[in-house]
Amino acid sequence: MGKIWANSGDSHLVEPENLFAERLPADLAERMPRSVRDDDGRHETLYIDGKVYRRRMPGGHLVDEAGKTVDQRAPGANDPNLRLQDLDGEGIWGEVVYPSLGIWTASVEDPLLVRAGCAAVNDWAIEYQAVSPRYVCTAMIPLLDIADAVHEIERTAGMGFKAAFFPVAPPGENRDWNRDEWEPVWSALEETATVVGFHIGTEPLEASGTTGLYFRGPGGALMNYMETTYGGQRAVTKMIASGVFDRHPALKVLVSEGGATWGPFVADRLDEAYRQHANAVRPPLPRLPSEYLYENVYASFQHDRSAVAAMTAMGWRNVLWGSDYPHLEGTFGHTQNTLHELFDDVDAASRDRITQGAFAELFPHVPPAPASEV
Amino acid sequence: MGKIWANSGDSHLVEPENLFAERLPADLAERMPRSVRDDDGRHETLYIDGKVYRRRMPGGHLVDEAGKTVDQRAPGANDPNLRLQDLDGEGIWGEVVYPSLGIWTASVEDPLLVRAGCAAVNDWAIEYQAVSPRYVCTAMIPLLDIADAVHEIERTAGMGFKAAFFPVAPPGENRDWNRDEWEPVWSALEETATVVGFHIGTEPLEASGTTGLYFRGPGGALMNYMETTYGGQRAVTKMIASGVFDRHPALKVLVSEGGATWGPFVADRLDEAYRQHANAVRPPLPRLPSEYLYENVYASFQHDRSAVAAMTAMGWRNVLWGSDYPHLEGTFGHTQNTLHELFDDVDAASRDRITQGAFAELFPHVPPAPASEV
Repeated sequence: MGKIWANSGDSHLVEPENLFAERLPADLAERMPRSVRDDDGRHETLYIDGKVYRRRMPGGHLVDEAGKTVDQRAPGANDPNLRLQDLDGEGIWGEVVYPSLGIWTASVEDPLLVRAGCAAVNDWAIEYQAVSPRYVCTAMIPLLDIADAVHEIERTAGMGFKAAFFPVAPPGENRDWNRDEWEPVWSALEETATVVGFHIGTEPLEASGTTGLYFRGPGGALMNYMETTYGGQRAVTKMIASGVFDRHPALKVLVSEGGATWGPFVADRLDEAYRQHANAVRPPLPRLPSEYLYENVYASFQHDRSAVAAMTAMGWRNVLWGSDYPHLEGTFGHTQNTLHELFDDVDAASRDRITQGAFAELFPHVPPAPASEV
Repeated sequence: MGKIWANSGDSHLVEPENLFAERLPADLAERMPRSVRDDDGRHETLYIDGKVYRRRMPGGHLVDEAGKTVDQRAPGANDPNLRLQDLDGEGIWGEVVYPSLGIWTASVEDPLLVRAGCAAVNDWAIEYQAVSPRYVCTAMIPLLDIADAVHEIERTAGMGFKAAFFPVAPPGENRDWNRDEWEPVWSALEETATVVGFHIGTEPLEASGTTGLYFRGPGGALMNYMETTYGGQRAVTKMIASGVFDRHPALKVLVSEGGATWGPFVADRLDEAYRQHANAVRPPLPRLPSEYLYENVYASFQHDRSAVAAMTAMGWRNVLWGSDYPHLEGTFGHTQNTLHELFDDVDAASRDRITQGAFAELFPHVPPAPASEV
């Protein structure tokens, strides 16, 4: 069985615990998110900006069946040199690498603190990225203040970031992605050719709840996992519907870990809405919604068989594969099996587009992946 | 251009305004939902169980570009004899016919009133259904009380109903479809071979709001239309995840008007959740979630090109076409154009499965549709 090489549209790093202590003044550092695990291994205490939350660890994400945490399971997750060994073993070449700390910023209400924290993470992450041209780290953007966001987009682009991590819904009330206030942010992203990386599961829920817990009761785990995809679809819908891609045709968006089969579906549904309810649509769009989705939006999946057909049968060329390394939903440990199951019956051109080409289109600076041996 | 004949998995009737007055005691009738349109044609006043709501008419649904209401636009909607002329003209054969009044029951908190109201609508709708074997009217089920629900399912099945209308989320707090309390309802539906018809857009929102208004601001109309599909996906997810189809393998569910391309996607995503988070899944399922979705769940779409490929390329054979007659989202007035656009490049067997066969599998008592002339 020959090796399939794939770029990943969805990977993660784990920040070192002392990141803020080393890079921020003490008075700011102590207000930044910090997690202390209980001895029982199942609960953690979060300290964020003077608030204390004790909660169950988000079990599905951080502990595998053998009880191993992410960093025990995949030591490469927080060591950029070890990581390359994991990637080579799995057959993963380039990676869009998301932060792990990001989601907690939703619990910080002080724009100054968010700004300082994002800058500290970015200053650290660019060193991680510098270890290999295969790493496309995503810059954290302070979203509580528009001017801060624009400034950090421009600053991180200057440092060499090619993508920015965005939550699927912005922090704060009534600040959805369809609102005009974000216009300077889209402009800055477009002008710096920074790809917007929406990672699903990042609705800005308070740390007091368990992020991603939408439902309880029988079937809850499956229901909650399903629910996470909708946030990514919504973020894209809001941008298309409010004309963001009409005003910023060069802006590219990647939705990571939410699957990809939804793309042609959302495109069709928005077209139906646009044609059948044309008199209620504001702003008017000069092109059909599907055209923006097919051109400006990309999405990554891990295991979904139907995602391949979203490209081969439905014509959406912006489907990326993603490993979700090192998370449990991902393919670490069985990547080659997964890739062969997905692509052995697929023509080489389609396989190469999904495993390599769509990623390369977003990030042409990354050296080409090795040819797959099949 | 030869005529394509299609069954519809999604159609509507409009109840006569005097239905409750004629069929219920006066004290109950006056508490049932009643809409009075303002002279401006844009607002209505709703009277429901002693409460009064004045609101904008749900514009997208009830007034077309020429300002015509549903019954002005398609007089057949509330006349079962005229309706057959519309259907023949459009090339529509059998129809799953949903009520228009149904959603308002969510604003009624008295189980006795819901029970009486549903019975009155059903006693009227069975007369509508009796006009033609092409009509599959959906029984309204009183959901505030489980015993009432079971009773009405059994009663309406005895009257000749083959399907029941269910909202995508049940009325009341903490009563989601994954809860054990619904078990007698699923049993009654399975035993009477009654198809569950989930119609999207039926989250039990209070009449005080405008149903289907999730978002405001730029792009709101498109965003709101997109959002409606998720309720149907959620309902199916809840049933699969909580093991309903494991316990009731003969139970069939149809999700109407929410598109169909989501089927293979939800199947893949639930399978990923099930395999990657197996230790958190309760109850355990003896089969993969996708197997239940592919066997027990059906869905109807109107215009989506990708829905055809959900069957032909992704293998989900339970895709139905639907007209949404007489609503604006639907195909009334351009049905043949739509069907030809969708199916002219599709092999006859796949076309016939989507336009006729999947419906016939759910409702084998309906006489076969005429052969399409292509």
